[in-house]
Amino acid sequence: MSERTVIALGGNAISPVSTAGTAAEQTANIHRSMRQVAALVAAGMTELVLTHGNGPQVGNVLIKNELAKDVVPPVPLDWCVAQTQATIGFTIANTLSYELTELGCGQPVVPVVSRVLVDVDDPGFTAPTKPIGPYLTDAAEVARREATGTRFVRVGDRGWRRVVASPEPLSCVDRPAVELLLEDGAIVIANGGGGIPVVDDGTGPLRGVEAVIDKDLAGARLAEELGAAVFVVLTDVTGVAIDYGTADERWLTSVTVAELRELQAAGQFTAGSMDPKVESVCRFVERTGGRAAIASLDGVIAAVNGDAGTQVHP
Amino acid sequence: MSERTVIALGGNAISPVSTAGTAAEQTANIHRSMRQVAALVAAGMTELVLTHGNGPQVGNVLIKNELAKDVVPPVPLDWCVAQTQATIGFTIANTLSYELTELGCGQPVVPVVSRVLVDVDDPGFTAPTKPIGPYLTDAAEVARREATGTRFVRVGDRGWRRVVASPEPLSCVDRPAVELLLEDGAIVIANGGGGIPVVDDGTGPLRGVEAVIDKDLAGARLAEELGAAVFVVLTDVTGVAIDYGTADERWLTSVTVAELRELQAAGQFTAGSMDPKVESVCRFVERTGGRAAIASLDGVIAAVNGDAGTQVHP
Repeated sequence: MSERTVIALGGNAISPVSTAGTAAEQTANIHRSMRQVAALVAAGMTELVLTHGNGPQVGNVLIKNELAKDVVPPVPLDWCVAQTQATIGFTIANTLSYELTELGCGQPVVPVVSRVLVDVDDPGFTAPTKPIGPYLTDAAEVARREATGTRFVRVGDRGWRRVVASPEPLSCVDRPAVELLLEDGAIVIANGGGGIPVVDDGTGPLRGVEAVIDKDLAGARLAEELGAAVFVVLTDVTGVAIDYGTADERWLTSVTVAELRELQAAGQFTAGSMDPKVESVCRFVERTGGRAAIASLDGVIAAVNGDAGTQVHP
Repeated sequence: MSERTVIALGGNAISPVSTAGTAAEQTANIHRSMRQVAALVAAGMTELVLTHGNGPQVGNVLIKNELAKDVVPPVPLDWCVAQTQATIGFTIANTLSYELTELGCGQPVVPVVSRVLVDVDDPGFTAPTKPIGPYLTDAAEVARREATGTRFVRVGDRGWRRVVASPEPLSCVDRPAVELLLEDGAIVIANGGGGIPVVDDGTGPLRGVEAVIDKDLAGARLAEELGAAVFVVLTDVTGVAIDYGTADERWLTSVTVAELRELQAAGQFTAGSMDPKVESVCRFVERTGGRAAIASLDGVIAAVNGDAGTQVHP
């Protein structure tokens, strides 16, 4: 278990949709997840990077921006992502450090404010597809905001929802810091919420952009850049199923990446849900020859050891 | 210039009161400050930690919480501090890295989400004194919130303002991570906004509390724990003056800590403004025998070299 490992925690590990998402609820939920992670470390994992989603949190931050916009200047989406990295990172550090200490482990847990470079010409910026934030019901308000360049999509009877780019993660800007901390023996939390999206337009500092990067794709990119041996995507089901939700439903325990790509091409996986997870593990295995898994949080130790979830091999 | 140095940047280096405080304004202002810091690094500084205030930013975050409280759960003050560490740290990392690259330097710049331990029995929690956030004008609203334990202070004709504890910084929880990164050659941003205040009640993980730690006192504590040789507090004046604002005004260039303590005891320094800066440099010099300075951002290189601002010696 001493191989360098990147684990991506789903939003459900932080804030299940069944809760209001108060800080106390998020803290309790993260604490529960960190008991599993601490057990993994206590079992001998030495080089561990955690990444995590931020869906419900960044939605709440956007709503606050919107409701307060006549009183305080709203902050851009990249700042909102940064804010969620800090609050989730803080809570993971508190709870994971505590559980590690209880198990006799003393590794520092370090959340890194992490930027991910995207292409200023990514097609997502001209044709955004990722819905974020609150539903709006006032057509005039939507028209006003569309006039300033914000894009919306109609979502059935619920109204309109803002759509932003979900650009390809090109490289992890703060990978060197993650690498240094790993070599120092720390457990690192990085690329939270897919990382803070930045572009390099060659005229000045890196610049944040209004986008949200898929956290599993950003996690796969980080795992690749760190030379990780294992990449694990944790979700709220036990792995990947084919014919999911039908009488023929069958859970996959072990597949080659070629087999998984065939199932993906056959349309087996839901867009925006299982499909990006499948895409991220396929990319990691194809690019590195490493091993990947999609598994549930409860099965994380077995999944890392190759004994649970859906194991994906070269 | 290769002595380990901690520099505390005042709020003015990030968001002067003269601006609305949009993200673009904060970024431009931070960028301007980082040109000075980059020049310092290019001149040979090797072990540098930056800390920074967050006054205007945390005020804005609190207003958003308040205005959106019926729609999304407000987050506690410790989360608000964490949020400002991330947005300011992100912006410092972008602009400082760019200026360093322009000067041929390649050090990673790493913002660390930083916690500072305070005493659960700090007198500030029973008698809070630090005003934060927006002014309220509705007496009934103030009464309602006071009934749930939030404390307010009447501020002349402007209404009421929330007051919170400003507890003593006891220790820097994330000092080990800062130390590791410094040893790896990184420039570290830590204890932003005085650090995220946490208490250890012995029954579970560290727990965030509703408080704001003075950023200069937290900076002095970090400098002491890191064994820094030099601690510099940057502000918008050139140093410490006695009889400030009078015909007898005189700027101090070099003082012993004993002399500075005498002037402080004589009531020379304004509470909440110059006094905590003086207190922080005095503590650092008294506890470590190191050198400290209070100076302006423009004079930072000379101040670090002992040639500008008010230099404070053992």
